[in-house]
Amino acid sequence: MIKPQTLKGFRDFLPKEARKRQFVINTLKKVFESYGFEPLETPALEYEEILLGKYGDEGDKLMYRFEDNGKRKVALRYDQTVPLARVVAQYQNELPMPFKRYQIQNVWRAENTQKGRYREFLQCDIDTVGQGSPASDAEIIVIAAKALDELGFKNYKIRVGDRKLFEGIPEAAIIIIDKLKKIGEEKVIAELKEKGLDEKILNKVKSSKPSADIELILGIAQDLGVADKVYFDPTLARGLNYYTGMIFEIEIEEYSAGSVCGGGRYDNLIGMFTNKQIPAVGFAFGFDRIMEAMEELNLFPKNLQITQVLVTIFSQEFKEKSLETASFLREKGINTEVYLDENAKMEKQLKYADQKGIPYVVIIGPDEDSKNMVTLKNMKTREQITITSKDVPKKIKAD
Amino acid sequence: MIKPQTLKGFRDFLPKEARKRQFVINTLKKVFESYGFEPLETPALEYEEILLGKYGDEGDKLMYRFEDNGKRKVALRYDQTVPLARVVAQYQNELPMPFKRYQIQNVWRAENTQKGRYREFLQCDIDTVGQGSPASDAEIIVIAAKALDELGFKNYKIRVGDRKLFEGIPEAAIIIIDKLKKIGEEKVIAELKEKGLDEKILNKVKSSKPSADIELILGIAQDLGVADKVYFDPTLARGLNYYTGMIFEIEIEEYSAGSVCGGGRYDNLIGMFTNKQIPAVGFAFGFDRIMEAMEELNLFPKNLQITQVLVTIFSQEFKEKSLETASFLREKGINTEVYLDENAKMEKQLKYADQKGIPYVVIIGPDEDSKNMVTLKNMKTREQITITSKDVPKKIKAD
Repeated sequence: MIKPQTLKGFRDFLPKEARKRQFVINTLKKVFESYGFEPLETPALEYEEILLGKYGDEGDKLMYRFEDNGKRKVALRYDQTVPLARVVAQYQNELPMPFKRYQIQNVWRAENTQKGRYREFLQCDIDTVGQGSPASDAEIIVIAAKALDELGFKNYKIRVGDRKLFEGIPEAAIIIIDKLKKIGEEKVIAELKEKGLDEKILNKVKSSKPSADIELILGIAQDLGVADKVYFDPTLARGLNYYTGMIFEIEIEEYSAGSVCGGGRYDNLIGMFTNKQIPAVGFAFGFDRIMEAMEELNLFPKNLQITQVLVTIFSQEFKEKSLETASFLREKGINTEVYLDENAKMEKQLKYADQKGIPYVVIIGPDEDSKNMVTLKNMKTREQITITSKDVPKKIKAD
Repeated sequence: MIKPQTLKGFRDFLPKEARKRQFVINTLKKVFESYGFEPLETPALEYEEILLGKYGDEGDKLMYRFEDNGKRKVALRYDQTVPLARVVAQYQNELPMPFKRYQIQNVWRAENTQKGRYREFLQCDIDTVGQGSPASDAEIIVIAAKALDELGFKNYKIRVGDRKLFEGIPEAAIIIIDKLKKIGEEKVIAELKEKGLDEKILNKVKSSKPSADIELILGIAQDLGVADKVYFDPTLARGLNYYTGMIFEIEIEEYSAGSVCGGGRYDNLIGMFTNKQIPAVGFAFGFDRIMEAMEELNLFPKNLQITQVLVTIFSQEFKEKSLETASFLREKGINTEVYLDENAKMEKQLKYADQKGIPYVVIIGPDEDSKNMVTLKNMKTREQITITSKDVPKKIKAD
C-alpha cells in the first residue's frame, strides 16, 4: 500500500487553516481593489528561458525545472515579477498604462526546508507599472499600511530607504550594512573590517539625507494617513539589487520573525522583454508570516467558521422537516449543514458539530414537530431553547 | 532578446477575464458554503506514486512528471479526487466524518491542444466523503443546481443515471451506449454491431427502471426544489468507471458544447490509501465551459468592473485635493483609482478611464476647487455634473 504523504516543504490546508487563508486573501483583495488594482493570473509553468537567469545563481538552483512531454524546457513559477514583465511585453498593445495589478498565486522554490522555509508558498504582489511619479511610490506604501490596518494590526512601522544612497558602495558592504538593525553597529563594523571594507562607509550611509524624491514620497504618504507609522532609515538596503529608488519594509512590533512586507521602485526590470525602460513600483506580503503574526496576535475573527448551523435528523420520520428547515435557514443567508444520515444517533450528530466547531445545532423530534417548533442548541454554552424555525435566524444573529 | 510567450495550452488571465473568473469562483464558493462545505487546498506537486496508475494509461501519459532536485519522482496535480483520497487517509484521525469539502485549484494535463483543450485548467470539485445515504446523493445534485441558479442559468436539465444498471455489461458496450444522446440510436446500434456486441443491450438498458436507491435520491432531490429539472436516463453511463451508483450530468439548453457539470457516487475510490471502504459522492464543474456558457448567454453582471471611479489630477496644484477626494470615496466603499501622474493631459487621463472601462471620472480643477465642488463625469453617457464630493457616492449608487 502506498504511504499517504506530502512532499517535504509542501502543505495541505485543511478547512480550518484554509478558511483563515481565505480570510486574509479576501481582505488583501478588498484593499487592493479599493485603490483600483485589478487581478492578474499567469500560468504555473513557463518556458524555462523566460525565468532562467532572472534570479541570480541561487534562483536558477532553486527553480523547479524539467522537460515536458513535448521536450520543451519548462519551469515552475518562481516569483510573480518576471511573469509580470512577460505579460507587459506580450500584451503591450492592449494593456492600458499604468497597469495596476495584484497577483496572489503560489510560487515554487526548492528551498532548504530545515530553515523553516516552504517549497510551495503563496505570494501576494501588487505593482504599479508604467508610472514613475513619487505619488505612485507613496500610494504603494499607503496600500501596504491599509492592508495591515484592515487585517487588524496596530503597531507596525514602515521603514523607508533609498537605494540610490548605495550607488558606488560595494555590494559586499551593502549586504553587511543591511543587517544593522538585526545585528547592531559593533558587529557591522567588525564584518566590514573582516571583509577588508572601509568601516567609514557605515557612518556615511547612516548620516545620509533622503533625496528630494524620497522626501516627496514621504510627504505624500504622511498626508495619506501613515504619518505615525513611516520613518526614513538610510541603512535599509533590501537584498534584491534590482531596486532603483525608494525601498521599504514593514515590521510588526509584536512579531519578531522579521518584516511582513517589503517592496520598492524598480525601473529597469519590467522592460526586460522589450527594448523599453518601464518604471514600476510595488510590494509583496510574506503571506506565511502574515498568517503567523495574525495567529500570534489573535487577529482572526471569532466567526470565521463557515458553517453556522448543523440541522440534525432525529429519525427517518422527521427527515423531511429537517431538510425543509435547512432550506429555510439557507434562504435567510445562514450557512447550514444537514447531518444526512438518519440512522446516526443524536449523540454522534452533536459530537460532529463539536468537532467541526459548528456553533448551533437544530433538533426536530416528535416533541418539536407536534408544536411546530425546533430546538436550537448553542454548542458553546450548551443552552437550548425551543422556538419556531422562523425565529432561528434572529436568535443566531442576536447571540 | 527572449520572446515573451506562454506555453501551448497555458493561459494568462488579464484583469477583464480574471474578474469574471473570480465572480464565478466566489458564486460557487458561496453556494457550497451555504450547505456547510468547507475549503481544502492540496499541493501542486505530489509524490509520483500517489498519482500514477490512478487515471488509467491515458492519465499516466498526460501527467506532468519529473524528477525534482532531490531526485524524488514527482507529478503535478492531475485531478482533485486522488489528492482528496490521500488527505482522507493522511489525516484520518483528525478529520471529522462526513468530510464535506470543496476544492477549487488548477490541474495540469498534457492534453492535445488541437481539440481545444487546455493544459492548465481550474477544477471546481465538491464531495461528501464518509456518508452513504441517498440524501447525500440528492444534496449533491441540488447543490449543483443551486450553483447554476445562482450564476443565472435558467434552462438546464439534470440527467440522472444509475451506474449499477451496467453491471455485467461489457465496458465496450457501455462506452457506445453512453453516446446515445449525442449520436442517436441508429449509430449506437451500428457501432455495437461493428464491435461484435449484442445490439439488444441497448433496449435492455433503455427500458431499465431506477433502483430503489435512485428513486429515493430522485424523490429527495425533487422535494428540495429541482423537480422541474431532474429526470432519469438509464442510458447515461459517464466515462469514468470508478462510479458505483448514482451518476448525473447537467446540460444547459442554450449551450451546445456539452455538459457543464457531472458527478456521482464512487464508494471504492477514497479508501485507496487505507484499508477501508469509504463512501463518497460529489461532482465537478467544467469551469471553462461554465465561463463560455456565461459569456454566450450574457450572464456576467454589468457591474463586474472593479474600479468605479478614476480621480484625475488636474495639475500639481490640485493633486492634494484629488488625493483627499479619492480617500473619501474609498471610505464610502467606492473602489477608486487616482491617475497619479500630475503631468498627464486630462485627455490622456480620460482615455485611460475609457480603456479600462472605469464608469466614472472625477475632475477637480480651478473652477471646481473655488466652489469646493468636483465634476463627476459618466463615461458611458459622457454627461457631467458639478456636485460636492459628499454627493458623489449617492449619485453613483443612484445611476
